[in-house]
Formats: sequence, structure tokens, C-alpha cells
Amino acid sequence: MEKKYEILKANLAEWTDIGQAISLLNWDQETNMPPGAAQGRAQAQGTLSRIAHEKATSAEYGKLLEELLPWAEGKGRDSEEYAMLREAKRGYDLSVKLPASFVQECSETSSAAMVAWREAKKSSDFPAFKPHLQKVVEQNRRKAQYLGFRETPYDALLDIYEPGMTKATVAKAFAQLRSEIVPVFAEIRARKDAVSNKILTRSTDTDKQFRLTQDILKAMDYDFNHGRQDRSTHPFTTSIGPADIRVTTWTDKKWIPAAIYASIHEGGHALYEQGIDPAYHKTALGGAASLGTHESQSRLWENIVGRSEPFCKWLLPQLKAYFPAVYGKVTEEELYRAVNKSEPSFIRVEADEVSYNLHILLRFEIESGMLEGTLSLDDAPEAWNAKMKEYLGITPKKASDGILQDVHWSMGAIGYFPTYTLGNIMSAQFYEQAKKSVPGMEDGFARGDFKPLLGWLRQHVHRHGSRYRAAELLEKAGCGPLDVKPFAAYIRNKYSKIYGF
Amino acid sequence: MEKKYEILKANLAEWTDIGQAISLLNWDQETNMPPGAAQGRAQAQGTLSRIAHEKATSAEYGKLLEELLPWAEGKGRDSEEYAMLREAKRGYDLSVKLPASFVQECSETSSAAMVAWREAKKSSDFPAFKPHLQKVVEQNRRKAQYLGFRETPYDALLDIYEPGMTKATVAKAFAQLRSEIVPVFAEIRARKDAVSNKILTRSTDTDKQFRLTQDILKAMDYDFNHGRQDRSTHPFTTSIGPADIRVTTWTDKKWIPAAIYASIHEGGHALYEQGIDPAYHKTALGGAASLGTHESQSRLWENIVGRSEPFCKWLLPQLKAYFPAVYGKVTEEELYRAVNKSEPSFIRVEADEVSYNLHILLRFEIESGMLEGTLSLDDAPEAWNAKMKEYLGITPKKASDGILQDVHWSMGAIGYFPTYTLGNIMSAQFYEQAKKSVPGMEDGFARGDFKPLLGWLRQHVHRHGSRYRAAELLEKAGCGPLDVKPFAAYIRNKYSKIYGF
Repeated sequence: MEKKYEILKANLAEWTDIGQAISLLNWDQETNMPPGAAQGRAQAQGTLSRIAHEKATSAEYGKLLEELLPWAEGKGRDSEEYAMLREAKRGYDLSVKLPASFVQECSETSSAAMVAWREAKKSSDFPAFKPHLQKVVEQNRRKAQYLGFRETPYDALLDIYEPGMTKATVAKAFAQLRSEIVPVFAEIRARKDAVSNKILTRSTDTDKQFRLTQDILKAMDYDFNHGRQDRSTHPFTTSIGPADIRVTTWTDKKWIPAAIYASIHEGGHALYEQGIDPAYHKTALGGAASLGTHESQSRLWENIVGRSEPFCKWLLPQLKAYFPAVYGKVTEEELYRAVNKSEPSFIRVEADEVSYNLHILLRFEIESGMLEGTLSLDDAPEAWNAKMKEYLGITPKKASDGILQDVHWSMGAIGYFPTYTLGNIMSAQFYEQAKKSVPGMEDGFARGDFKPLLGWLRQHVHRHGSRYRAAELLEKAGCGPLDVKPFAAYIRNKYSKIYGF
Repeated sequence: MEKKYEILKANLAEWTDIGQAISLLNWDQETNMPPGAAQGRAQAQGTLSRIAHEKATSAEYGKLLEELLPWAEGKGRDSEEYAMLREAKRGYDLSVKLPASFVQECSETSSAAMVAWREAKKSSDFPAFKPHLQKVVEQNRRKAQYLGFRETPYDALLDIYEPGMTKATVAKAFAQLRSEIVPVFAEIRARKDAVSNKILTRSTDTDKQFRLTQDILKAMDYDFNHGRQDRSTHPFTTSIGPADIRVTTWTDKKWIPAAIYASIHEGGHALYEQGIDPAYHKTALGGAASLGTHESQSRLWENIVGRSEPFCKWLLPQLKAYFPAVYGKVTEEELYRAVNKSEPSFIRVEADEVSYNLHILLRFEIESGMLEGTLSLDDAPEAWNAKMKEYLGITPKKASDGILQDVHWSMGAIGYFPTYTLGNIMSAQFYEQAKKSVPGMEDGFARGDFKPLLGWLRQHVHRHGSRYRAAELLEKAGCGPLDVKPFAAYIRNKYSKIYGF
């Protein structure tokens, strides 16, 4: 059996290598590829994905897994071998449970839906997108049937992105979050002129912005020997093999936080990947525990660290050095308040850390309703707007500012949105625990020293890769089960001081 | 059979896609890859190469070729189908005729030889490298046996890089070239102070150098919509799929021709690849006719065009615009003479267009002698130095300036060197024919108009890909068989004027 286990690992290593090529084809597409190469690039990506899929769904591989599973279980549920088989089997099941013809059908639906969505968004025409959304919803119901679930089809979909998570758990956590955040946000809205972020709209050279973000990543101990930062249309992190974790950022001449916080956010994702135990590299344990866990790392760095007072204290002299004429006279207090201005906005991706989760709650409620048939698609835009009014106090005037704003559904992804807020919830749990364990941690931030925090995260989160599920990881790190309280308390404490309520 | 032919083409397209990924892994390694990713990258390259090799050598594929060959022959030797099968079969034979264990052995020898060569070169210690070279020579003899040949094992090796070429043909052409060039070069040596290139050593900003080379590539009609230029340690051209042909260049603050002529050289390679008939893309006809043919295009642009009087006339105002303080007062005559200074040098890659081929003749004579056993490895360094004295009039003081300078043998490549000079010979044949067909072609160069030349090359060389062998291509372009005379005449006419003899 040990020999078969080695064969399994050799297979997984081979597929990681193919994945490395696919990741590089994608990365290059976003950063360097000449425009005329798009069609040929898509073909190459398709070919490599097909080759990887054929290998990862072969009957021979399925048989290998079946043989190894009892052996791994025999090693104990806490053994590395068990985790390896659990994750390998999970990947295999996700691939083979969906018939090839169904996958093809979904892919065609999604291609057409993406085109229709782009058009519909331009003209704010939800009825034009509705038939495509209808198809996506129906296919997701069938997908859930193929994958299997206990309580609701939503569970099956959620499990794709957040293994082990259920709708019931999400619903409970989100309800609690709503009851905590909506009142805080109402207080903020009542004091909307208390905070100004106008200093951040001052024009600054984008090349210098980029160099500043390189400095920030260095301070965060992002490892440039095993990664690099480039610019792209949308910021992202990609693993081109375990020793090459790349990030991208964007720059906006008149909105410097775009570059700074995109870099910190992607840097947070990258630190997770760079911190995974090398023993897990190129195995089924070499990824993250879940999308939510991944997001907990990016959000922890972006918001809890990057928008903290000591971080701003460290950041200000860097800003002054790059842009003496622009930021020379700005105070720490001004910078801290500016990067923490909270206000209602229609668009999720532009939302601040207080209102962001309200955007997600709304999407969770709407997409689960559509999937389960308790919300008709005809009523969805109205439901969207009503919830916006209830949670954020504003009503979108057009569908492009409302239900048509996100790409996820046209991509066929239902059950993905909650991972963002699960990430925020977990980020505060991890951070609270780190702060308890590492005395004086935040004082270091003001000197640009983030090593103690990173050390804690490495030890309790990063190194484990996907050895443990998210819930286990929280428990093992001493955070207990998923808990909204630390995040809610963090938000209330921080913003009541800033806005004075 | 038409259906089987489509299967063949689908196979070839799939392998081109895998090749695209491999090319990108290589390109990225030279341009963007963080240093710590080297080991993982090598593994991914190895995995993808193995997957491609397994597919391209499968018994099923071999059977498909055997079935299709008689059918394609029935279409006539001039048919596209025949050419397709000829090239596909050639690739297949090159892969399957060498046993996997032998390929492995060669690869191990080469890895060790590369390491030993680098060390030996540093200390100019040929005896330290000799045992590795011995192994390489012996393995190349066996390789020739596996591949098969009529007259000499050298034929089998040459054929890998220059299909259809024989040592007899090379030897005859090279002997004639020697009798033409050695006396010309002696005349130049006798007037070594007649030409100065000192103006080219003036310090210039390397970013501006790079921008200048971008302008030059644009003027050459290199298609930036289907390619890009970057910087790398050594300049190269790579095809990341047929719609993405990338070049790289280098820059040297104190030697501006490095950037300019590397870009033009690689641009010449790239124009060939960009000009291949799209109908041949992702098939066995989508490459070049031979390495020599490829080199004929790079050399034609680099030397015959790029070092011509009208080109210098066009280049000078660009130089003045980028570097007014440095080149403001330089005349066309000064620039033209400077970029054409010819002088003996020990190192091939630094040689000018007159002496370059003498370096190649010498290597051809030495490597064929070693392979055929007429030259012992012990005598090789001495033979090298004697030929240097005879052809170039100088004697290397150390092996690193002599027999240890090139990487080719440690890579296991014997039979590769002649393709450089075959390229030079063909470049003059193609150019002479283009000039005859396109009246006033060179006058356009002075205005930065290279379209008529490119049009001729597209029509007679580029579009054909590997549909025709090099010799056929020459014939079809109206150049007759391989002929040294145009190149020899070009060199004699040009340099007798410059040096006054």
C-alpha cells in the first residue's frame, strides 16, 4: 500500500505540473500576452485542462483511490494519509460525479450567459439576462443533485467552495452578523460627513504608487524570491507552482488606496500560499483549506492590519517619501480616518469593510432563494432593491447598480458569495487569537514589523495547507467554532471611535 | 482516409498546444520567473515534455502515419498532404528511432557535461572537459547509427537540424567559401585602422536603447499584436503558439549595437514565424524549413539590411532623436563604417559578418573530424588554434578563447554549427533574388520602408513554413541550388569599398 500511496503522490505531482503550465498561461494572458494571441491561448488552455481532466478522472485513478482509502482510514482520521486521501477523493468526486455532457452543457450556458450579462449590464436590462440566469439556476439544481446533499441543494454548491460548510451554519452566522452590523452602519450613515477621504484622491504618479506597493509587500515578508508583482486589469494571486506565487495589482492616479489595498489583499493571499508546508507541495494538501480561509488571510492583512492605526503610522512616512508635495503635510490621524471612511454604495467591490458583508448577506439570501424556488426570478430585482434599502439604506436606480453588477452567476457560480463573508468572520477570529498569543504585536506594525503576526499565521494557518478543514483549523488555532462576535466587536469598536457614537 | 487525416491534424494541434505551454514556461523562465522557482519549473517542463513525447511516440500514432503515408504519396509529391506526412513522419522517426534509455543516457551526459564545461571554461582547462566531450562524441556516433545514414554518421546528425542536407554538400560549399573569404579577410586585416567603431562605445541610456529597438521592430513590420519584445540575458525568439511570436534583446550601456542588432536579428527570425501561412498553423508544416533557413532570415535583416548604407541613413535620425548629445554630430558615413568594422576576434558570437563564417568552417572541420575519428580529441585544441591562425590570423592564448568557448557540444549537439553559415549563404541568395524582383527596394530602406522586401520574403519564404525543404525553397524562389557566390560577392563588394582594396 505504501507503494500505491507513492503512485498516488506521483500522479498528484504530475497534475500540479500541468496546473503550473495552465496557471502560467492564465497569468501571462492577464499581464503580457499580445492581444492577437487570445484565441490560440484559449485553445491551449482548453487542451491542457482536458489532458489534466482525463488523467484525474481515469478509471485507473479511481481504483487507486478506492484501494487506498481504507488503508488511510486505518492510519487514523488525524493522519496525513487520511487527509491526503480525503482531499484526493474529494477532487476526484467533484470531477467524476458530473457527467461530461453536463459539464459541457454548463460551460456552453456560461459562455452565452457571460456575453448576455455584459450586454444586459450595459443597458441595465435584467429581462434580457433573465433567461440565462434561469438556465444557470436550473443547472445548479441539477449539479446539486449530481453531487448529493443532505438538507438543501445549496449545501452541495457551498461545499464546492467551502468544504464541510452548510447553509444552516451560514444562515445562522449571517443572521447574527446582520443584527450586529446593520445598526452600526446606520450610526455611520447618520454621521456621513464625520470622515473625509479627499486626501486620497490627490493625483499621484502611478509608477511611484507601484514602487510603494512593492515596498509594502517586502515589509509584509512576501517572498520575492518565490514570486513577483505585476499590474493587470483586475488584481489577482496565482500559484504557478508552489515555489512561484505571483500577485498583481492595479493603479489609479486619482485614488491611491486602489493600489495599496489591492497589493496588501493579494499579498495576504500570497503569504498563505507561500507558507504552506513544503512537504505538502504538489500533493492534494498543497492548497488552501477553503476559499473562505483564503479570504480570511487577504482580508486580515488588507483591513485589520492595513487599515489599523499603527499601520497608518508606518505607512505615512513612506507616502511622504514618495509624494512629498502631496502628502507632506498630512497627519497620521488624517490618513487613518481617510482609509476608514465608510459609506453606502451600490457596488460590492467598492464597498468598505463595514458595508461589504451586507452586500454578501443580500446575495446569499437571493441566490439561495432562487435555487430553492422560494424566490422567483421575476421578483429577484425587487427583492435585491428592498434588501439594499433595508441593510444599506439606499435603493439602486438601475439593475446595473443592483442585481446585474456581479459576474459570478453568469459564470455559473451559485454558493460562492458566502465565502467572502466567512473569510471576514474568520479573519477577526484568527487575528484576535494571534493578538492574545503575541504580546505587543500591533506596536511592531508602527515600525513596519509584521513578522510576529506572520509567524503566528504561518504556524496556525498557512503551513497546514488543506490538511484540515476550515472549522478544524479554527479549533486547532484556539479560535473555537465559527463565531461572528470577534468581527462584530472589531467593527463596532473601531467605527464607534472613528465616527463618535 | 480523409477522416484519418483529420485525426492526424487534431493530434498535431494538440501537441502544438502542449508545445505552447512548454514555450511559455521557457520564455517566462528567461524573462519573469523569480529565482526560487527554478527547480519546480524544471520539473514542470520535464513533465510536459514527457507527456508530449508519450503522445507523439504512441504505437497508435505510428500506425496512423503508416496508414496515411501511401494515401498522401498518392496525392503526389508536391501535394500538401504529402508534405504533411513527410514532416509528421520525420518527427515521429526522430522520436522513436532513439530508444528511451539512450535518450535518458544522452540527457544525463549532457547535464554533467554542461556543469563540467562551465567549470572547465572558467579555468581554461580542456583536459577537464575532454572525458565529457569524448562521451558526447561517442553518443553522437551511436545516435547516427540509430537514425541511419548513407555516407557518414555526420549526415545523420546534420539532417536533424537541416533536413536533406549532407556533409558532402556542406564541405563543398564551405571549401568554396573559405577560398573566397580568407583572402578578403586578409585584406581587411592589413588595413585594420581604416575603420573605427569608437562612436558606438559612447555611453547611452539602456531604456532609451530598448525603446529605439521597439521602433526598429515596428519599422520592420514585426507584428506587436501577435508578439512582444522583452529583455533577457541572451536574446532569443520563441513561438508561444503561431499567434504569439516573442523576441528578446539585451542592452549594453557602452555598446549600442548589441541592442540594435540583436533586435533586428531576432526580428528577422520572428518575421519568418509570423509570416507562415495560417493554414499550416498547429500542423507539421507550421515550422521553418530548417535551422539554416531560419538563420537566413535573421542574418538577412541583421547584416544585409541592417548594416547597409540606406538602413544607416534611416537609423541615424532615430539615433539623434534619442541621443542628441551623443550622436548629434555623427554623419551617415561614420555610422555606416562603424557598424561594419571587421576585425579578427577569438569569440564566434562577437564576430563580424566577414569573419563569422570562418569560425563556423573551423568548427565544422573539427567536429566532423572528431565524429569520424580522423581527429583525436587530444589533438583538437591544437587543430583549433592552427585553423584560427590560418583563417583569421590569430592564435588563442587559452582554451576558453578557443575550443572551450561554445555551449553546443556540451549540450550534445554535433552537426548544428553548419546551419549558421548555411543561413548566411542562403540569406545572400534570397536577397539577390528579392532585389532583382523588386525595383528600387533599397531606396525604400532609407525612408524606413521595408515592406517590399518583406512582401517578397513572405511570398517566397515565410508563408511556406516547412512545406518545402530548404533546397526546394531556394529553387522555387528562383535562387537555384545552394550557391556561395552571392554571399562571397556581397562581402567582397561591400568590404573592398569600405576598406579600400
